[in-house]
Amino acid sequence: MSRFWSQTSKKILPYVPGEQPNDRTYIKLNTNENPYPPSPLVLKAIRENANESLRLYPDPECNELRERIASYYGFNKEEVFVGNGSDEILAFSFMAFFMPDRPLIYPDITYTFYDVYASLFRIQHTIVPLKDDFTIDIKPYCTDGAGIILANPNAPTGIALDIDNLETILRNNPNNIVMIDEAYVDFGATSVMPLIKEYENLLVIQTFSKSRALAGLRVGFAVGNKDLIQGLNRIKNSVNSYPLDRLAIIGAMESISDNAYFQETKQKIINTRERIYENLNDLGMNIIKSKANFMFMCHKEIYGEELFKRLRQKGILVRHFNRPRIDNYIRVTIGKDDEMDIFIEQLKKVISEN
Amino acid sequence: MSRFWSQTSKKILPYVPGEQPNDRTYIKLNTNENPYPPSPLVLKAIRENANESLRLYPDPECNELRERIASYYGFNKEEVFVGNGSDEILAFSFMAFFMPDRPLIYPDITYTFYDVYASLFRIQHTIVPLKDDFTIDIKPYCTDGAGIILANPNAPTGIALDIDNLETILRNNPNNIVMIDEAYVDFGATSVMPLIKEYENLLVIQTFSKSRALAGLRVGFAVGNKDLIQGLNRIKNSVNSYPLDRLAIIGAMESISDNAYFQETKQKIINTRERIYENLNDLGMNIIKSKANFMFMCHKEIYGEELFKRLRQKGILVRHFNRPRIDNYIRVTIGKDDEMDIFIEQLKKVISEN
Repeated sequence: MSRFWSQTSKKILPYVPGEQPNDRTYIKLNTNENPYPPSPLVLKAIRENANESLRLYPDPECNELRERIASYYGFNKEEVFVGNGSDEILAFSFMAFFMPDRPLIYPDITYTFYDVYASLFRIQHTIVPLKDDFTIDIKPYCTDGAGIILANPNAPTGIALDIDNLETILRNNPNNIVMIDEAYVDFGATSVMPLIKEYENLLVIQTFSKSRALAGLRVGFAVGNKDLIQGLNRIKNSVNSYPLDRLAIIGAMESISDNAYFQETKQKIINTRERIYENLNDLGMNIIKSKANFMFMCHKEIYGEELFKRLRQKGILVRHFNRPRIDNYIRVTIGKDDEMDIFIEQLKKVISEN
Repeated sequence: MSRFWSQTSKKILPYVPGEQPNDRTYIKLNTNENPYPPSPLVLKAIRENANESLRLYPDPECNELRERIASYYGFNKEEVFVGNGSDEILAFSFMAFFMPDRPLIYPDITYTFYDVYASLFRIQHTIVPLKDDFTIDIKPYCTDGAGIILANPNAPTGIALDIDNLETILRNNPNNIVMIDEAYVDFGATSVMPLIKEYENLLVIQTFSKSRALAGLRVGFAVGNKDLIQGLNRIKNSVNSYPLDRLAIIGAMESISDNAYFQETKQKIINTRERIYENLNDLGMNIIKSKANFMFMCHKEIYGEELFKRLRQKGILVRHFNRPRIDNYIRVTIGKDDEMDIFIEQLKKVISEN
C-alpha cells in the first residue's frame, strides 16, 4: 500500500484471472478458452492489415464492425456497442447505468467481476443467494427495485435460465436496466437478444473470446435499445476514445463473416461436453448440467482444492474458487476430445490414489 | 438522454476526438499521427503472430513488454505499467490516485481529456490559467496542496517546461502525485523520467501512438516508483484484466527493439517542423515554438475557425478548438515534407483569397 493511493485504490479487491503458468506444458482447462483456433479468414485478414495503416488511429466509432454484428443478429448499428472484451463493456455499463446512485442486484455465486465493479464504482448492491441446487430463484429479481445483472448461462455453474423466466424478470422491471451477460450463450443456451425489440430496459453483452476463439484479440459487444448504447458511448468517450485497435476490429469482422466455421467449432465443443458427461459420472463425480464451454463438478470424497492441486501435478490446469458454497468444486473448461480423454484418465488416477 | 442513464452518464461531457472523414482524400494534419509507417520489424512480428495463439488470453501482466520498456529506459519491470493507449492509463491514474477524495490541479489550456476524467470520477480540481504567452507559471503548482497533471510538451501549444522547473514542482510536492504526460516528449523536449529514482511522487506517461507511429495499435505506458505502478495495477485488475491484445503486445515489443528506425523517423519530423517555421512566419502566421509533432498557430486577420474551414475545403485537415483563449488558433500536425509543402501552398492561397 502507498500513501499516494486514493481511497478507491486502497479499498478495492481486484479480480484475479486464471493462472497462465510457464513452468511446464499443461493441458489448459482453467480459463474457458476455445480449444480450436480462430477462423483462418480472421488470421488472413489480420496478416493483410498489418501494414502502414497502423500509424493511423482506428475508427473511434468502430462503424464497420458494429454494422457487421448488427446485420448478423438482425439489429441496427445504433443498437450495437463494441469494447475491449466483455469485461470493459461490463465496467462501462456499471458506470453508465448505476454509478453511483442506482442500486443493483445479482446472485451470490456468479462472475466475481460484478463484485469488483460494484466496489470500484461505489454502487449500492444486494446479493441474492442461489438456491441449494445453484439455480436462480427469480422472485427477488421481480420487484422493480433495482437494476439487475445476470450471467446466462451462469458462471461458474454453467446453468442457464430459460427465456420465459428472463422475460418475467424483464416484464417486472420496467424502470430498471436488466443486463444479461451472455459470454457463454453460444454453447447451448438461448439468447435473450430477440426481446430487445420489446424491452427498452434490456442490455445483452457477449464476447468474441469464447465461442469465436479470440480471447487473445480482446473484443466484446453489447446489444440493446439505441438510448442504452448511446449511454455506453458517452462513458467510452470519457475514458478512452479508441479501445479497439485496427487489427482487433478487422479480425472480429472476419469472424462474424465466417459463420460456417463458428457453427462447426462450437458444435464440436458441445458434442465433447455431452460425450464426457457419463464418463465423469461413472467416476463418482457430481457434475452440474452445463450449457457453457465448461463444467462445474465435485467429488464425494476429495475436496475441491485438493482435486485442483492433484490435477495440476499431473499436468492438468483447472480452476478452483476459494469462495463460500463453491469451494468444494472445480471448474473444467471443455477442450478437444483428446484433451478431455487425458483429463478423465488423470482424474481417474487422482481418485484411485486417494 | 435516457431515463436509464446514471447521474454520471447524464452529467459528463465526453471527449471529442479529431474527425476521421471518408468523403474525400485529405492531407490529414488533425490528429497528430506520425506520417511515417511503423517499423517494418513491428509489421513482420504481427504477421508472424497472427496465428492459432489468438485463441488464448494474452499475459494479463504483459511481463515481456514491460521488461522490454524497462530495460530500454533503465528501469525494472515493476516500475513500468502498460495500457490501451495513454488515455486508458490517464483514466486509471485518475482513479488510482485521486478518485474521489484527493484534489487535483492543472492548466486551463491543456489536453481536454483531463477535464473529462475529473468530471467522470468526480474529482475536485483547480484550473490554473496559463500565462498570456501560453507558458506555465509554476508557482501555483508549488504549494503541496493538490496532485498535479501536466502535459509536457503541453497540448495543443507544443510548449515544453524544462527539467529545472519540473524538479522545482516535484520538490515542492512531497505529499502529492505529480503526473507528467509525455505523449509528445520524443519530438524535442526532455523527459523527466530520470528523476523517478529520486522522486517517489513522480509518474511519467508516454505512448506508442505518436513517435512510434502505432496509433492504430493502442499501446501506452507509465513509469514510476513501484508502489505507484502497483496502484495502477490494482485499478487495471478491477476494470479489465487484459486491455492489451496479443498483437499489440508483440508489436510494441518490436517497436522498442528497432531503435534505429525510431530515432531516424522522429528526427525527420523534427527537421520538417524546423524547416517550415520560417516559411509560415513569412506568410504572416503567428506560430508558437513547438517541441511536439504539431504547431499551434494563428493569422493576424483570419479567425481560427475560418482558417480551419477554408483549409478543409482545399483538402487539408487541421484541428480547431472552440474554447476560450485558443479559438483563434489552429493546431497543425507535422506531416512529411511534401505534405507540409502542400499545406503551405494551400495556406498561402487561403490568405491571398482573404
